[in-house]
Amino acid sequence: MDELDIRNFVEALKQGKISPEKAIERLRKLPYEDLGFAKIDHHRSLRQGYPEVVFARGKTLRQVREIVRGMLRAKASHNILITRADKKMFAAVKRLAGKRAGSARPEFHELSGTIAILRDRAIRGKGLILVVTAGTSDIPAAEEALVTARAMGNRVEAIYDVGVAGLHRLLEHRQKLAEARVIICVAGMEGALPSVVAGMVAAPVIAVPTSTGYGSSFGGMTALLAMLNSCASNVSVVNIDNGFGAGCVASVINHL
Amino acid sequence: MDELDIRNFVEALKQGKISPEKAIERLRKLPYEDLGFAKIDHHRSLRQGYPEVVFARGKTLRQVREIVRGMLRAKASHNILITRADKKMFAAVKRLAGKRAGSARPEFHELSGTIAILRDRAIRGKGLILVVTAGTSDIPAAEEALVTARAMGNRVEAIYDVGVAGLHRLLEHRQKLAEARVIICVAGMEGALPSVVAGMVAAPVIAVPTSTGYGSSFGGMTALLAMLNSCASNVSVVNIDNGFGAGCVASVINHL
Amino acid sequence: MDELDIRNFVEALKQGKISPEKAIERLRKLPYEDLGFAKIDHHRSLRQGYPEVVFARGKTLRQVREIVRGMLRAKASHNILITRADKKMFAAVKRLAGKRAGSARPEFHELSGTIAILRDRAIRGKGLILVVTAGTSDIPAAEEALVTARAMGNRVEAIYDVGVAGLHRLLEHRQKLAEARVIICVAGMEGALPSVVAGMVAAPVIAVPTSTGYGSSFGGMTALLAMLNSCASNVSVVNIDNGFGAGCVASVINHL
Amino acid sequence: MDELDIRNFVEALKQGKISPEKAIERLRKLPYEDLGFAKIDHHRSLRQGYPEVVFARGKTLRQVREIVRGMLRAKASHNILITRADKKMFAAVKRLAGKRAGSARPEFHELSGTIAILRDRAIRGKGLILVVTAGTSDIPAAEEALVTARAMGNRVEAIYDVGVAGLHRLLEHRQKLAEARVIICVAGMEGALPSVVAGMVAAPVIAVPTSTGYGSSFGGMTALLAMLNSCASNVSVVNIDNGFGAGCVASVINHL
Amino acid sequence: MDELDIRNFVEALKQGKISPEKAIERLRKLPYEDLGFAKIDHHRSLRQGYPEVVFARGKTLRQVREIVRGMLRAKASHNILITRADKKMFAAVKRLAGKRAGSARPEFHELSGTIAILRDRAIRGKGLILVVTAGTSDIPAAEEALVTARAMGNRVEAIYDVGVAGLHRLLEHRQKLAEARVIICVAGMEGALPSVVAGMVAAPVIAVPTSTGYGSSFGGMTALLAMLNSCASNVSVVNIDNGFGAGCVASVINHL
Amino acid sequence: MDELDIRNFVEALKQGKISPEKAIERLRKLPYEDLGFAKIDHHRSLRQGYPEVVFARGKTLRQVREIVRGMLRAKASHNILITRADKKMFAAVKRLAGKRAGSARPEFHELSGTIAILRDRAIRGKGLILVVTAGTSDIPAAEEALVTARAMGNRVEAIYDVGVAGLHRLLEHRQKLAEARVIICVAGMEGALPSVVAGMVAAPVIAVPTSTGYGSSFGGMTALLAMLNSCASNVSVVNIDNGFGAGCVASVINHL
Amino acid sequence: MDELDIRNFVEALKQGKISPEKAIERLRKLPYEDLGFAKIDHHRSLRQGYPEVVFARGKTLRQVREIVRGMLRAKASHNILITRADKKMFAAVKRLAGKRAGSARPEFHELSGTIAILRDRAIRGKGLILVVTAGTSDIPAAEEALVTARAMGNRVEAIYDVGVAGLHRLLEHRQKLAEARVIICVAGMEGALPSVVAGMVAAPVIAVPTSTGYGSSFGGMTALLAMLNSCASNVSVVNIDNGFGAGCVASVINHL
Amino acid sequence: MDELDIRNFVEALKQGKISPEKAIERLRKLPYEDLGFAKIDHHRSLRQGYPEVVFARGKTLRQVREIVRGMLRAKASHNILITRADKKMFAAVKRLAGKRAGSARPEFHELSGTIAILRDRAIRGKGLILVVTAGTSDIPAAEEALVTARAMGNRVEAIYDVGVAGLHRLLEHRQKLAEARVIICVAGMEGALPSVVAGMVAAPVIAVPTSTGYGSSFGGMTALLAMLNSCASNVSVVNIDNGFGAGCVASVINHL
Repeated sequence: MDELDIRNFVEALKQGKISPEKAIERLRKLPYEDLGFAKIDHHRSLRQGYPEVVFARGKTLRQVREIVRGMLRAKASHNILITRADKKMFAAVKRLAGKRAGSARPEFHELSGTIAILRDRAIRGKGLILVVTAGTSDIPAAEEALVTARAMGNRVEAIYDVGVAGLHRLLEHRQKLAEARVIICVAGMEGALPSVVAGMVAAPVIAVPTSTGYGSSFGGMTALLAMLNSCASNVSVVNIDNGFGAGCVASVINHL
Repeated sequence: MDELDIRNFVEALKQGKISPEKAIERLRKLPYEDLGFAKIDHHRSLRQGYPEVVFARGKTLRQVREIVRGMLRAKASHNILITRADKKMFAAVKRLAGKRAGSARPEFHELSGTIAILRDRAIRGKGLILVVTAGTSDIPAAEEALVTARAMGNRVEAIYDVGVAGLHRLLEHRQKLAEARVIICVAGMEGALPSVVAGMVAAPVIAVPTSTGYGSSFGGMTALLAMLNSCASNVSVVNIDNGFGAGCVASVINHL
Repeated sequence: MDELDIRNFVEALKQGKISPEKAIERLRKLPYEDLGFAKIDHHRSLRQGYPEVVFARGKTLRQVREIVRGMLRAKASHNILITRADKKMFAAVKRLAGKRAGSARPEFHELSGTIAILRDRAIRGKGLILVVTAGTSDIPAAEEALVTARAMGNRVEAIYDVGVAGLHRLLEHRQKLAEARVIICVAGMEGALPSVVAGMVAAPVIAVPTSTGYGSSFGGMTALLAMLNSCASNVSVVNIDNGFGAGCVASVINHL
Repeated sequence: MDELDIRNFVEALKQGKISPEKAIERLRKLPYEDLGFAKIDHHRSLRQGYPEVVFARGKTLRQVREIVRGMLRAKASHNILITRADKKMFAAVKRLAGKRAGSARPEFHELSGTIAILRDRAIRGKGLILVVTAGTSDIPAAEEALVTARAMGNRVEAIYDVGVAGLHRLLEHRQKLAEARVIICVAGMEGALPSVVAGMVAAPVIAVPTSTGYGSSFGGMTALLAMLNSCASNVSVVNIDNGFGAGCVASVINHL
Repeated sequence: MDELDIRNFVEALKQGKISPEKAIERLRKLPYEDLGFAKIDHHRSLRQGYPEVVFARGKTLRQVREIVRGMLRAKASHNILITRADKKMFAAVKRLAGKRAGSARPEFHELSGTIAILRDRAIRGKGLILVVTAGTSDIPAAEEALVTARAMGNRVEAIYDVGVAGLHRLLEHRQKLAEARVIICVAGMEGALPSVVAGMVAAPVIAVPTSTGYGSSFGGMTALLAMLNSCASNVSVVNIDNGFGAGCVASVINHL
Repeated sequence: MDELDIRNFVEALKQGKISPEKAIERLRKLPYEDLGFAKIDHHRSLRQGYPEVVFARGKTLRQVREIVRGMLRAKASHNILITRADKKMFAAVKRLAGKRAGSARPEFHELSGTIAILRDRAIRGKGLILVVTAGTSDIPAAEEALVTARAMGNRVEAIYDVGVAGLHRLLEHRQKLAEARVIICVAGMEGALPSVVAGMVAAPVIAVPTSTGYGSSFGGMTALLAMLNSCASNVSVVNIDNGFGAGCVASVINHL
Repeated sequence: MDELDIRNFVEALKQGKISPEKAIERLRKLPYEDLGFAKIDHHRSLRQGYPEVVFARGKTLRQVREIVRGMLRAKASHNILITRADKKMFAAVKRLAGKRAGSARPEFHELSGTIAILRDRAIRGKGLILVVTAGTSDIPAAEEALVTARAMGNRVEAIYDVGVAGLHRLLEHRQKLAEARVIICVAGMEGALPSVVAGMVAAPVIAVPTSTGYGSSFGGMTALLAMLNSCASNVSVVNIDNGFGAGCVASVINHL
Repeated sequence: MDELDIRNFVEALKQGKISPEKAIERLRKLPYEDLGFAKIDHHRSLRQGYPEVVFARGKTLRQVREIVRGMLRAKASHNILITRADKKMFAAVKRLAGKRAGSARPEFHELSGTIAILRDRAIRGKGLILVVTAGTSDIPAAEEALVTARAMGNRVEAIYDVGVAGLHRLLEHRQKLAEARVIICVAGMEGALPSVVAGMVAAPVIAVPTSTGYGSSFGGMTALLAMLNSCASNVSVVNIDNGFGAGCVASVINHL
């Protein structure tokens, strides 16, 4: 009974405006679709303005296909995002989408493995979300963040390869940094970029550690820990390589 | 030359509106004060609307006293925050503040060891920041977040002890959760609260893991990792027990 | 509306047997008491037959006292358990309990720091819960398990210091092991006891790693990991030193 | 001399009812079969009502085949379970089973790689074992638990994809959760589901962390730690992805 | 029935040479003494020539006193070793030992906290056990090894402070190293000494990592890992600071 | 404005010696080239005498090719180094270099995957850099260090397979060790070599842990930790397998 | 000057019995062969009675071949052991050995990847080395230990699959355990076997953790830690899967 | 025979210029003093120009006193450094030094616990060693580095509290950074300072992680890992809080 006014509901029931059966059903039914192995939460899209999202890794091709089929079936015009997908999944999704007249064309962002079906391209986020990376190898996570934030209705721009060991490359983009309403800062290795960037701006900085690096970078753990211990206080952190999460958090903030 | 319009500066110099000496000084001088062992960054307060902050742990009593003296000396009416302080430090700060007529009275928040000198009590944050804890033992970190967010000009409220193993306690506060513009979610042990709370709202959720717990909670590491792996996508995370950081991030967002 | 039959409730409302005000209240009110910094969940005791429990570590003396005062105030005859307490807390609890005529006398179990106020001594668990330790240093966690299981209405016995490097000590207690309906197996260091015990019986074995040991025992981590990797398949594990949890799980099983 | 009454044995020996040779043999012989590289423990099946189990990972195809051949050779009608197997092993097992008239047909559960030869389909467990997963990617471990618990003679049902960030999906299944005698709760990522589920029921909850997730989920370590630190006290935990263990523990409890 | 010849026992029983009661008792009784919270294993001393050992850490003063009282009560002339003890425990042990005429005087080795009561000073080990340390701070663990090996009847010598960064100090002791039958090599920090020593001799080298060091020495973990990865192949390792274990292993080998 | 004398610049501007446009450009422009996904920092080569370096791992073939193309395009005669490359990348680089008349021929060092294009073979480093390895499996990291140091204009020699368990192999090279101005010491497993080598010389020793080893060598973590805890005080450490970093640090020192 | 009597050498030099050239050479020359990328230490075999050993993992086929060629070239009749090799390496070694008349035939032990060329089959170890495994999956490490100990001139036997959850399987082999002079105990998962075995015997027990297991077994780390924390005191430990090391240590002890 | 020319020695012996006794003595004797529990290595000071150093932590007061007494007794005019000492040790050292006429007065540096007895104040290092810290809490480690480098004959300066979140504070010191021949960069928390500093200069940067911070800073582990993964290639790293090591390495380099 999330959005229900309890008083109204009780009154309606009292006055016979709702039959007991309807009332019971209403108390029970929630807007999601049950595929058995997965429950599609149309409700969440309704409630939070999120796209419908499938995290493809760890799911079989068949499972992904069934979930996307269910999403496309729903009349809603929400965007659809499939993260950590591969080429086979993209081919399957293209076939599914092709059958439905009027449906938007799926796009595949290869570096990050993100499939986006943008059925709604309106910009509702209030400002600019800026995605910044320390190196070239951080681009996959940055791309996932960028595609996610766009699918959630934001204006997004990116600056790549401005790591802290060459400050002049970063300092040149001060203007753009100052312009951004939210910054997503993507870095592997020592994960120092968010501290430096956050010290230069007043905006919230979402730090994304990446698994870029080797040896004692421990698959991104070092960058993650560094970011959590940032001496800048406008920084918060998401999981390693979690471009999707960063895009979501940034979008949620940018819609405030 | 952060906020300077380079063109204007160059033009002014060219036209002699600024003397070379002034220009050199301007290129050199930045608004911070050098105590030798510490540099007070009045600049940051100016630029980002932050209070002046001292992280007291790891500093000697003498160092804290000197830094606070410098902060009080500055004419600015910024709030002053001393985190992770103890009673001795509070006594010293009270003595320092007492000497200055018109200065605000320092308050000591004992559970978290936070000293606040609120010289400016205006509310500039746009909405409500809500601080939620899973248990009673999480209150110290929550208090630090609360005091910080207040010192940064926000309306803040708190709900304590609503952990996920007793969902009814949490569900009762749905209204308040829905009302918040930003939520700070503080939990130790398994760190599950942010996932549940974030699933109930559309607001950004700042998760603060605490060192509450024992054994394999590893001083908050378990809660931290759990929060980083949250299945809710509107969650970002700060360091263990970092109530200060959460308060800052929440405030920065709430000022957008 | 946990235990409510929704149909009955709706029907009663429909027929006017419950006034709208009552209905609203019923939908809102849940049996817990709010102390601000803590919420006493009388509800859980009602629902699950649990004692009311306070985990004292990380709480101030004042907080523990207020919570216990609330628990004693409630008319219910549930047992009260305060774990990880110290002597000061025990003194405070004794003072509180002494004021209430007819209240059971608090007992203090010093090795584990457990305070028990047994207002209900009925045995409702169906069989014997047996607590077994590898060494003498494992007794604190074992005692916490034992006191917990007793406070939850079970017959409990203990065998101490029967570690696997002296098999004959363990083998001598085969009969007792076979008699138990649930076994709690407490061990530090290499944590091997649960594997050996579980291989000898058909009962479920709850393994409790302890922080006994030094060096690479890592405060119980080694024992914990060993138990999770047990080659016996009737073993499940709780947190390091979590005698309370083991006692609860064993009691829940023993009440089936 | 596990189940022997020592008194009876000694008396029989004394009275000549057992010849010395028999007595020696009896003291020596235990019901297992030695294949050199492996010892099949028919004894365990006899004693604990377990199926005969082969953990296939880390064994060569030849080794698995020889062990299963030995199990099929034994006259006992115990069920046979081969976990973590692949298609090649299944083919070999099918060939072996096919040769024996009257033998049950092996089934292959592909997501988890579990092969079951159910020669005994009687239900002896007293209640319902319910397997619940947080996500779709947790199904492999859930399937292993489900197949195991069935092979051990239990009624088992499953609810998939009811993670804590969408509480309404979980809350809808309250009735079923309340009905279960034992619950197996399978989750990766932040591993929060067992805490929430355990807070809703009085039954014992066996938590199974899965290696679902990425980055700082550390192959399931995060979920494992979270579950061990659950604030719900009717939770115990098995190894990461250990559906088999969870099925065993649940069955052992359900047979009490 | 460890050391019993089963045939003889059965025959004796058969022929009535042992009464059923005796037989039962014999099957049951094993030479240890049960103090409730601890079981003194006189048996182990008998079987393995070990001293009776109490690991004092994690035991209360009362527990240590009761165990030692039991050990002194036994007629056996085994040596008694109390490791990780403090001055209070030593005082209590001295009082206990003083009461028994003819009992050996307890000695306290302060750096390691080892108490030894040597009732049997015969040398039965075949060669020299040499204890070598990398630094002065490693002496406590070395002393524990040395006292243990002596209490187990070995000739033991020590060379201290011959770390690998000053090879000449080590090389000077080549003769002594070559003379040893077993070498115990104690080192903290980078734990390199065992590799170098083991490369110089043909004897088995028992490596003891110590918690000497700071920062990334992680309480001895670094030395432990280094020793486990030694490129010398005559090295085996015991737990961090486990001088007692090293002394035992060395003694067991030296008695072969 | 790194190398600019601020005074001169300001004066020139004042006096009209620089036009405002030039001044603005000068404040803006920095000597790097922007490829969008990567920024080639010619500046760094100019400033620090470094070769232009591409870390190929984590970059696509296309990205590497574009970056190298940009580097070759620049007129500068800096050496070019591509580390962690594979054969395909080498083929592409050869094709690129072939097209440019006069360009140096790329060499491929297969064990380490390093491609070097040496356009400048002058020796500017003042002394000998000596690369020493503990084993044969450490050669890849050593080769990377060697090629890097050569590309940076140093005389470099190597001694392989002189691990500490066979001291005589190492001691034989004392002369060469004493001759070196900087030593790079490469070792996996227990990582003891730098301590021993550093104790023998007065030169700075750069320690490179390698991922050589298995089990508890944890991909080089053990060697890394050992080296950080070296009891020799002229040792500093770089990341696991970071031959490139060691080569750079050694070269920077050797150019002093 | 390891084995030299310094006095004799000095005297001989003084008396002209050794020419200065010879003396210099003697001080310089040590019995190893330098292949550039590897140094074959014939010296070690001479000094310690070891076989010549190549650890093949991390070496190229070419490197292994060159090293083995050098070993075969040496006239010595030492055994040759190549560990962690694959089939290609075995083929190459067979070809090399085939060319030398009279050379022993290489054998390939496939589970562990060990190649042995036994040119000397004399038994010089004094007693029996017994290799015991907890499970079938532990056989590869056990086989490496067994082949190593045999190549070093010992009588070796093996008992497989006697894990602690089925004690009767282990107890049946008491006689054989008692007979062994040294025991090598191989186990993965919870690594409990060495504690139980060591408690049953007086012989030294070398524990070998294996990477058998999954999830929180962390590639053998759990077994390793458990073994290091064994409550039995006649246990020492080698690296994960280090059958070779265990075989060496056992042999060194067995030759005492 | 470290520094001996073997040829000369052999020749001298041959010609009778050295008596056999002298030769033997010479081969044996090395310039260190044996106190039993410690060996004072005067040799190292001679060979490497190091001060004589005592690492006081983990040593008893008595041990430190004896070692310092030995150092003062030696005629050499080397400086003496006692690191990680406390006030009691300083008092003892003052008393010892006071007794010796002409001996330099010990100084106590309280933040780091370093005692220096400077008997030789000559500057032999070629350039400036600059110590830079990120925060005020990093000063103890910086002070240890500074005192060490001074005791080793270097000109040293320090800049404190110039962390990367306030770049302008750091950028202001560019001139000084450029002037330094070697830079020691001390930082806790996210450890980002060395990357930024190293990118600004061509000098070698020695990074010192500190245990400053809390929660997931893990006692300096996070800063350590970040520094090891620095994207700047002129950075090498020493142990956490190892100011002494950094001072040594910097001095060794500065003497080249």
